[in-house]
Amino acid sequence: MTPSFDTIISGGTVVTASDTFKADIGIRGGRIVAIADTLTGAAEVIDASGRLVMPGGIDSHVHISQPSGEGVVMADDFDSATRSAAFGGNTTVMPFCFQEQGQSLRDALSWYHGLAEGQCHVDVSFHLIVSDPTPQVLGQELPALAEEGYTSFKMFMTYEGLKLTDRQILETMTAAKLSGARAMIHAENDDAINFLRDQAELAGDTAPKFHALTRPIPVEREATHRAISLAEIAGVPLVIVHVSNREAMEEIARARARGLKIYGETCPQYLVLTAEDLDSPQGAKNVCSPPPRDTASQAACWEGIEQGIFNVYSSDHCPFRYDDTAGKKHPMGEKSFRWIPNGIPGVETRLPILFSEGVVKGRISPQRFVALTATNHARLYGLYPRKGTIAIGADADIVLWDPERQITLSQDILHHGSDYTPYEGFEVTGWPVLTMVRGQVVVRDGTLSTSSSGLHIPREKPQA
Amino acid sequence: MTPSFDTIISGGTVVTASDTFKADIGIRGGRIVAIADTLTGAAEVIDASGRLVMPGGIDSHVHISQPSGEGVVMADDFDSATRSAAFGGNTTVMPFCFQEQGQSLRDALSWYHGLAEGQCHVDVSFHLIVSDPTPQVLGQELPALAEEGYTSFKMFMTYEGLKLTDRQILETMTAAKLSGARAMIHAENDDAINFLRDQAELAGDTAPKFHALTRPIPVEREATHRAISLAEIAGVPLVIVHVSNREAMEEIARARARGLKIYGETCPQYLVLTAEDLDSPQGAKNVCSPPPRDTASQAACWEGIEQGIFNVYSSDHCPFRYDDTAGKKHPMGEKSFRWIPNGIPGVETRLPILFSEGVVKGRISPQRFVALTATNHARLYGLYPRKGTIAIGADADIVLWDPERQITLSQDILHHGSDYTPYEGFEVTGWPVLTMVRGQVVVRDGTLSTSSSGLHIPREKPQA
Amino acid sequence: MTPSFDTIISGGTVVTASDTFKADIGIRGGRIVAIADTLTGAAEVIDASGRLVMPGGIDSHVHISQPSGEGVVMADDFDSATRSAAFGGNTTVMPFCFQEQGQSLRDALSWYHGLAEGQCHVDVSFHLIVSDPTPQVLGQELPALAEEGYTSFKMFMTYEGLKLTDRQILETMTAAKLSGARAMIHAENDDAINFLRDQAELAGDTAPKFHALTRPIPVEREATHRAISLAEIAGVPLVIVHVSNREAMEEIARARARGLKIYGETCPQYLVLTAEDLDSPQGAKNVCSPPPRDTASQAACWEGIEQGIFNVYSSDHCPFRYDDTAGKKHPMGEKSFRWIPNGIPGVETRLPILFSEGVVKGRISPQRFVALTATNHARLYGLYPRKGTIAIGADADIVLWDPERQITLSQDILHHGSDYTPYEGFEVTGWPVLTMVRGQVVVRDGTLSTSSSGLHIPREKPQA
Amino acid sequence: MTPSFDTIISGGTVVTASDTFKADIGIRGGRIVAIADTLTGAAEVIDASGRLVMPGGIDSHVHISQPSGEGVVMADDFDSATRSAAFGGNTTVMPFCFQEQGQSLRDALSWYHGLAEGQCHVDVSFHLIVSDPTPQVLGQELPALAEEGYTSFKMFMTYEGLKLTDRQILETMTAAKLSGARAMIHAENDDAINFLRDQAELAGDTAPKFHALTRPIPVEREATHRAISLAEIAGVPLVIVHVSNREAMEEIARARARGLKIYGETCPQYLVLTAEDLDSPQGAKNVCSPPPRDTASQAACWEGIEQGIFNVYSSDHCPFRYDDTAGKKHPMGEKSFRWIPNGIPGVETRLPILFSEGVVKGRISPQRFVALTATNHARLYGLYPRKGTIAIGADADIVLWDPERQITLSQDILHHGSDYTPYEGFEVTGWPVLTMVRGQVVVRDGTLSTSSSGLHIPREKPQA
Repeated sequence: MTPSFDTIISGGTVVTASDTFKADIGIRGGRIVAIADTLTGAAEVIDASGRLVMPGGIDSHVHISQPSGEGVVMADDFDSATRSAAFGGNTTVMPFCFQEQGQSLRDALSWYHGLAEGQCHVDVSFHLIVSDPTPQVLGQELPALAEEGYTSFKMFMTYEGLKLTDRQILETMTAAKLSGARAMIHAENDDAINFLRDQAELAGDTAPKFHALTRPIPVEREATHRAISLAEIAGVPLVIVHVSNREAMEEIARARARGLKIYGETCPQYLVLTAEDLDSPQGAKNVCSPPPRDTASQAACWEGIEQGIFNVYSSDHCPFRYDDTAGKKHPMGEKSFRWIPNGIPGVETRLPILFSEGVVKGRISPQRFVALTATNHARLYGLYPRKGTIAIGADADIVLWDPERQITLSQDILHHGSDYTPYEGFEVTGWPVLTMVRGQVVVRDGTLSTSSSGLHIPREKPQA
Repeated sequence: MTPSFDTIISGGTVVTASDTFKADIGIRGGRIVAIADTLTGAAEVIDASGRLVMPGGIDSHVHISQPSGEGVVMADDFDSATRSAAFGGNTTVMPFCFQEQGQSLRDALSWYHGLAEGQCHVDVSFHLIVSDPTPQVLGQELPALAEEGYTSFKMFMTYEGLKLTDRQILETMTAAKLSGARAMIHAENDDAINFLRDQAELAGDTAPKFHALTRPIPVEREATHRAISLAEIAGVPLVIVHVSNREAMEEIARARARGLKIYGETCPQYLVLTAEDLDSPQGAKNVCSPPPRDTASQAACWEGIEQGIFNVYSSDHCPFRYDDTAGKKHPMGEKSFRWIPNGIPGVETRLPILFSEGVVKGRISPQRFVALTATNHARLYGLYPRKGTIAIGADADIVLWDPERQITLSQDILHHGSDYTPYEGFEVTGWPVLTMVRGQVVVRDGTLSTSSSGLHIPREKPQA
Repeated sequence: MTPSFDTIISGGTVVTASDTFKADIGIRGGRIVAIADTLTGAAEVIDASGRLVMPGGIDSHVHISQPSGEGVVMADDFDSATRSAAFGGNTTVMPFCFQEQGQSLRDALSWYHGLAEGQCHVDVSFHLIVSDPTPQVLGQELPALAEEGYTSFKMFMTYEGLKLTDRQILETMTAAKLSGARAMIHAENDDAINFLRDQAELAGDTAPKFHALTRPIPVEREATHRAISLAEIAGVPLVIVHVSNREAMEEIARARARGLKIYGETCPQYLVLTAEDLDSPQGAKNVCSPPPRDTASQAACWEGIEQGIFNVYSSDHCPFRYDDTAGKKHPMGEKSFRWIPNGIPGVETRLPILFSEGVVKGRISPQRFVALTATNHARLYGLYPRKGTIAIGADADIVLWDPERQITLSQDILHHGSDYTPYEGFEVTGWPVLTMVRGQVVVRDGTLSTSSSGLHIPREKPQA
Repeated sequence: MTPSFDTIISGGTVVTASDTFKADIGIRGGRIVAIADTLTGAAEVIDASGRLVMPGGIDSHVHISQPSGEGVVMADDFDSATRSAAFGGNTTVMPFCFQEQGQSLRDALSWYHGLAEGQCHVDVSFHLIVSDPTPQVLGQELPALAEEGYTSFKMFMTYEGLKLTDRQILETMTAAKLSGARAMIHAENDDAINFLRDQAELAGDTAPKFHALTRPIPVEREATHRAISLAEIAGVPLVIVHVSNREAMEEIARARARGLKIYGETCPQYLVLTAEDLDSPQGAKNVCSPPPRDTASQAACWEGIEQGIFNVYSSDHCPFRYDDTAGKKHPMGEKSFRWIPNGIPGVETRLPILFSEGVVKGRISPQRFVALTATNHARLYGLYPRKGTIAIGADADIVLWDPERQITLSQDILHHGSDYTPYEGFEVTGWPVLTMVRGQVVVRDGTLSTSSSGLHIPREKPQA
């Protein structure tokens, strides 16, 4: 008799966004086809006793191989980034396809697909960064690309070359609305940042810590409220990415109380780092935007994790090298924080940090962990129900998690392209021990499969 | 070969609090043991094609056979109430064991268990209403009863004979905290109600509509904030039952923003009735507390349903007869609203109303429907993971739902003991067509099984 | 014996921002020198029995002779505007000196002073509108002009040719901070307005009412919060002019709760007009920005008047002609609301509307009336203690008010340059019967003095 | 020629709630009859050069000769309390007439009037504390007494023998409404205090600091919201006395945003003391209710002083002796904080503390000082326009203030009956140097007049 399943994951504790229960999982053709008290009959049986069996992490905020200006190279290509993601328990990452000024989005996509093709160890699906919303882009490209499965458009309110005017934001939001795509936004007030940065430099305040001081909370709160107001005017739901503090969270809460559909994302750096981490000789390592704030902001973000302001928890993985010949992330980085690239690595440490600080410390349930790290990402961006859950018919994207393994985070044990981790020495309890993508084991016991092959996943139009 | 399963539910669309997917469900020994793309081998196969297969409703707010003063008899005993519940797609109801003044809770329980024994068509599990929190009750009975599975204590801030002083509330909350039990509260300011009621009667304002006018929103908002403050002082999570309007909801939101664990419940009457429904010749039929408000309050409650202020949606089923010899719910009911019993039937209509107005009209997903009607109740009150979900190992408490069936709500088709429904003529889309409790079909195609036998379910201590 | 006083105002009821009492007022050399139960010995005694004797109105928001683009001429020059002001009980108006692109503020001032010189019937003092904040303007001109008594800088967030970028706003605010000048802002999001206007025109929605629909409340709330955030970042107090609705008011309240010094202004149009007044054949007559909203917004603005969100109540007098050869305020006005100049007359009707709707109807005290119409303007903009109160040493800028006179507002009885009033037919109780500037009677019993001579008043740096 | 005035105050700087200006003040028959640049012709001329000439302080919250239970005697009788008040720059104090259980208010008044008669150095006017609101009291006494000038009724939500039920509060508020009297309330939740106190004592936590810990902010916030809700239901304005923290302030702000008339009072102890002042060997000296909080609460209260949440600033003077034979304020005081009388002296130090910390430090203007210490009290409680301002016709109740005098507060220099001051060693700038009541100098240069004679002042019904 032929075995019923290609693989059985046996004896583990299954966790979904709503449930935790002991069960075996049967996989066939890369999909989950059975969940039962006991299953038998498979080519391979994976022993999951003592393990949590969870949907593989979906990291919907990952930067890979993006140009970073001035000859600075991002530290991860698709090979290293997705390897790092797989080791960190992720089965899908969502990198950005960044449109340069004057470029068509289709050309940008060709370039990024070319870089990704055959290089990925987990599945990927691109968000589109709209930086040049010409009538052609808005009226032709975006609707067509949304039909083809690129169903999320990201906008920036800061960064030269990326930032959009309010009018452009309104028009891009309208394109998202008409295309059924998800609108996302990076909310910081560019003019205020530049004003404060120039003031700081005039005063000789150029150390990394001034990166945080020149992007204070009102800069983020202002842009958050403005982005929400523009979404309100355009009549479109909106994801506010990387929210760092209570004031920005309150803007989301106020918007929801007005009946708007506003989604919030936070990241590990806002839960465990503070601005003081930038105030050290190696402070450049922790420069990202928005910057980590203070312990009160950490507490606020935890509250948002627990109580629902945040729908998703992502890494905002944006890796650079620090001790390169380039030096301190950028040749000019020691001259002024202005030149330090804004970004830190984190795709591999995202899940352990939340599991350890959240689940193990009793702040959230395992189910909420799954919702925040996988299911809600899938829902928000149109990967659901194919991805993000353990359910019949879903891709067998699964992570086996040892809830008791104690690990000290360290650059030595990570697989990203950066030469450091912001979390060096941070101790966590709980660690991914097996990562499976569409039924194929990608990482097992610290070893990467040689045959792993991530795909690009076109997406559905997300539900509002 | 012996069949693997007692029953297979085949070809349906399974809905849990997080997922929707096509699958067969295998049941053995009253429990769900398999969920798979295809299952075979069962004594009985139930065809669920075209149906949603959802966790049976848990109605955690149901009054049965409670004494109602002045010779007024509640219209449902355990037989009729649980029959009505079963027809309405529910598999567990949580009635109240009401301690009378001077009575021990154990004596009260004996009485209610005596009434329920052998009479129930679905499972039941009692909340304890604490009305006389003597040191003996607080120090001995409640802790012992919590150990025995009565893990929720309800307090009232109004009603003669039920209402507790703030000191008693603090002490009962403390008993809940020490016992690991869930604290619940009915929040209305008794003194304010009596003051306004006496004023109204003096003015000759005795019609049913003055029931609503003498319990205005500030009466509920005040008590809600007070209850939350007492919970804050006692250091205990709290469920605010039957929230009717935005101001009370804001108290819950404010409390959560202070980091408190406050849970909210709303009911069908706050989503589809208004105070105008009391302003009619038969207004007494719609007298309940808090009263339905206005359309702005309805909209607010829908927002709470959609956005998370409300964790659970219950019926507050509290049935009386209107056209009895007793007349208008109470012999004195036509003399003054003071005498009209506060309560309306609803255990049978709860699920169709939310499905039709919520899911069919696109306000909420089927998953959110399941969370609000079943899973969150189970979690909040310690029935989880045995009840409230479709997962391996859980009780096979299942409702098959026809999402397209159109029904006009009417007393004729309902099974409760009341002689009317507040929703007469209300049209719904979606209807329960089969209710199964622990693997046994209780209602199928409008027919009650003769062998159904509900059990009392002791509960775990709920997670905070 | 020589008389002690030039003039005595005898037998009236004096009202200041804090007090109401019967007293005579003695004036000498244009200043108030005595307030007493009885005064004698004056060249002229003005009988004020039955009259309120109040500080003359200060209207700190008045547009006179500003270029309005496209050949459209503002309907008032300094002669007519200040005549109208005097008839309306005002003794000082604060018009704007508008810097055109590329122009120096000093040149702009020369031009406006040239227009005003010898033409004014009440005192005037210019605000500076900064539209081109070059380093020269910010670093040289503004500080020098602040020293010379031009101690308020106004910024616009909308209107082509006026609007500043956020960076320019931050820099202009900083100039105000360093100069000790008062920062003022018109808060509407220009991009959002243009986006909505273009959408409306595409849809053929060009009638005057679409002026209001394309500037909805979120457009104003957004800009209000942004302006406040920029002031927070720059560390400078800020006046939000012409606030029209509760949401914008809440931004002010939230800012104050964060400890910021934010001042609010509202205007008659937000207290007695609504957007429906634009939805008529002559709707163009009521086009102004922000537009009047609805009755809930009116109620909110009254609450702000009563409870202190608003510090000042101004007219935003901005007069155009409607039935000119130009037609409907603008040659293109009937083609689209886009071309209708944004502004309505109101300097003459401001005080009667607030007195009648506020004081007579019991919403505010006479003292609050004086604070809102005179004293707070003087304080906010550095005219105090010379102007804005009845106190020893202050300029004898006084209005005698008949609190019982009933008047139907009508173009026939007004003196502005517009050919209509938005308040045609509006009935008021209370009317100014004598206006005195620095001791000189300017208007008495409906007759303008032939010798009146308003001065330009340099101002002090306002207290924070 | 007979002099025009009895007294001229010459050369000072007059401050009212709205204005500051140099002027002479002419007094005749105990009233202010002239304010002018120069006055001559008086029996006495008081040189006020270099002095502020302000309305004498009105302290509307002063406890004198109230029974304090258990044989504890309040440390001030009317002689010493009003002497202390006069030295502190006050010209009117408003003590409480406390109705004991079963007592008529008229009997209570007789007793207090008997104590006060001929003993007062400044004017006094009694509030009525309603502790036993029988139908007779509510229906007969209160309306009659309001007609006779006792136009304020105070209610307590805590303290055995004083506290009212919510029903009693509603009825007393209604009596205030029908009588046109001002309702005042002490807002703390009695049950919560007793619950926490008993818990603390069980734990052996009996030191003075536990007084503060057993009356945490939620205890005050709860009662504040409840009191406001009851006022909302009864339809009556309300004064919340002695507000100590931001959360209670927010309840006031929220109520005003709902359109209610809610007035707030704060006291020196909330501006300059904290709960740490109770955590010392002599902590009993600083026991009062609500207790001082922390520095964040101080900052919040200052914000309320500056921005208008607080209408009045009073002392809540409630003096006890510490080093008496009684010992530590109470014979049992060292056994448990329960027995320590709740109250501290402050009538003499109230004005210097606010002047020094508020005006001298630039937080508030001299006008706001006058409003908070005199004018608003007079308005709120029906003393205006006779008291509380410097205006023609008002009582000549005046304090001359040396704005530069530096004083170290110390028991040595004070005149109250307590044997300590909570502000020992506190340094202030600004001091009252002359106090005049109805034209009679009561204190001059540290010497009490032998002929001073305070009167009881019946009051008008306050304006809503």
